[in-house]
Amino acid sequence: MGSSHELARNGHKDVSLQELRWEQYHSPRNLLLALVGEVGELSEIFQWKGEVARGLPDWTSDDKEHLEEELSDVLLYLIQLADVCGLDLGQAALTKIVKNARKYPVAEQTAASTN
Amino acid sequence: MGSSHELARNGHKDVSLQELRWEQYHSPRNLLLALVGEVGELSEIFQWKGEVARGLPDWTSDDKEHLEEELSDVLLYLIQLADVCGLDLGQAALTKIVKNARKYPVAEQTAASTN
Amino acid sequence: MGSSHELARNGHKDVSLQELRWEQYHSPRNLLLALVGEVGELSEIFQWKGEVARGLPDWTSDDKEHLEEELSDVLLYLIQLADVCGLDLGQAALTKIVKNARKYPVAEQTAASTN
Amino acid sequence: MGSSHELARNGHKDVSLQELRWEQYHSPRNLLLALVGEVGELSEIFQWKGEVARGLPDWTSDDKEHLEEELSDVLLYLIQLADVCGLDLGQAALTKIVKNARKYPVAEQTAASTN
Repeated sequence: MGSSHELARNGHKDVSLQELRWEQYHSPRNLLLALVGEVGELSEIFQWKGEVARGLPDWTSDDKEHLEEELSDVLLYLIQLADVCGLDLGQAALTKIVKNARKYPVAEQTAASTN
Repeated sequence: MGSSHELARNGHKDVSLQELRWEQYHSPRNLLLALVGEVGELSEIFQWKGEVARGLPDWTSDDKEHLEEELSDVLLYLIQLADVCGLDLGQAALTKIVKNARKYPVAEQTAASTN
Repeated sequence: MGSSHELARNGHKDVSLQELRWEQYHSPRNLLLALVGEVGELSEIFQWKGEVARGLPDWTSDDKEHLEEELSDVLLYLIQLADVCGLDLGQAALTKIVKNARKYPVAEQTAASTN
Repeated sequence: MGSSHELARNGHKDVSLQELRWEQYHSPRNLLLALVGEVGELSEIFQWKGEVARGLPDWTSDDKEHLEEELSDVLLYLIQLADVCGLDLGQAALTKIVKNARKYPVAEQTAASTN
């Protein structure tokens, strides 16, 4: 990842400006709209396909790779959105899973039995 | 998580039916639309707020908790969508991060220096 | 619709405040996020249904009414979004239809023959 | 728009195939996902801009034209979605406006006074 000391010596001003710009661009609502944009791209992959079978048996590896990229883009913006909001997404998701397990105990047992 | 053996003894038929129903409901496009629904709920939290400051300094802890729940719901459906498509979301996201780092080397250095 | 003169006499200050508040709330990005929220609610209607047949033959009239409401909500926010942006949505849509007709002439003929 | 009789004479089979294909592609959920895709493109226009002023005073005419196209795309898919569902979107929107007016009588009066 390189040394931030080195960066500070070589280009302190540029880096500070870039950080500032990053902070300015990566506001919660900017990241939320970027997330919506990526969900749109994800939807475009599925839009003319009719029902799609689990495991994507008929998809080419190129199509699968494209899908992986869009899924990743959604995930990365989701993580950044949680981050600029000062929230711990991993902890929040675990809490939600536990909450769901209490709410739907049978479904949870079923899920356990399928694993 | 309980024992699947026990489940098999106690209610094998019900579980199988539930698994079948789960499989039927959790098709790729069903999960995608559920994801879009959760992104809609996430957007509703931000919709009348105007620009929102990083770290959400003016939000109550209830509002933050609500936001954490919606972020989690998006994440959980995203994971399930990748799963029924037979894709490894974690690996895909790492690949995408490396790809982005090569594409935007300066930004990556900046990101490193801010950590 | 009532008389605005009457309103001016009875509660001029309140109305001005409400107008101000309306203007403040109905910024382009607030309306865009409200639109995304409604698209989410629209998606929720379709999310666990698997493929849905044209004309919705198996839907109850309650389900159809619910769908009409969500479609309307999306439309109304779309109109408001165009409005606060100072754009003429009707004219823009006509321009786009003409543009599409030139781009896909055969499809347009087909569409004509199906009417 | 041309004559469908002429089309029937010249290329009846092709047209029928195209109609079939159109019908096959334009299922409710395909059109819904296409709508979500367009809402994503609409969001991308706004995603890095921070708060945007009403009337878009700082936007170039190219940016405004791009926005008009995306708004139109959302509208056109919304109309098509209502259409394949056998619903009358215009009537539904009017019904919703009347319903809202009854639900929020003061807001409606304010809206009247601002016109």
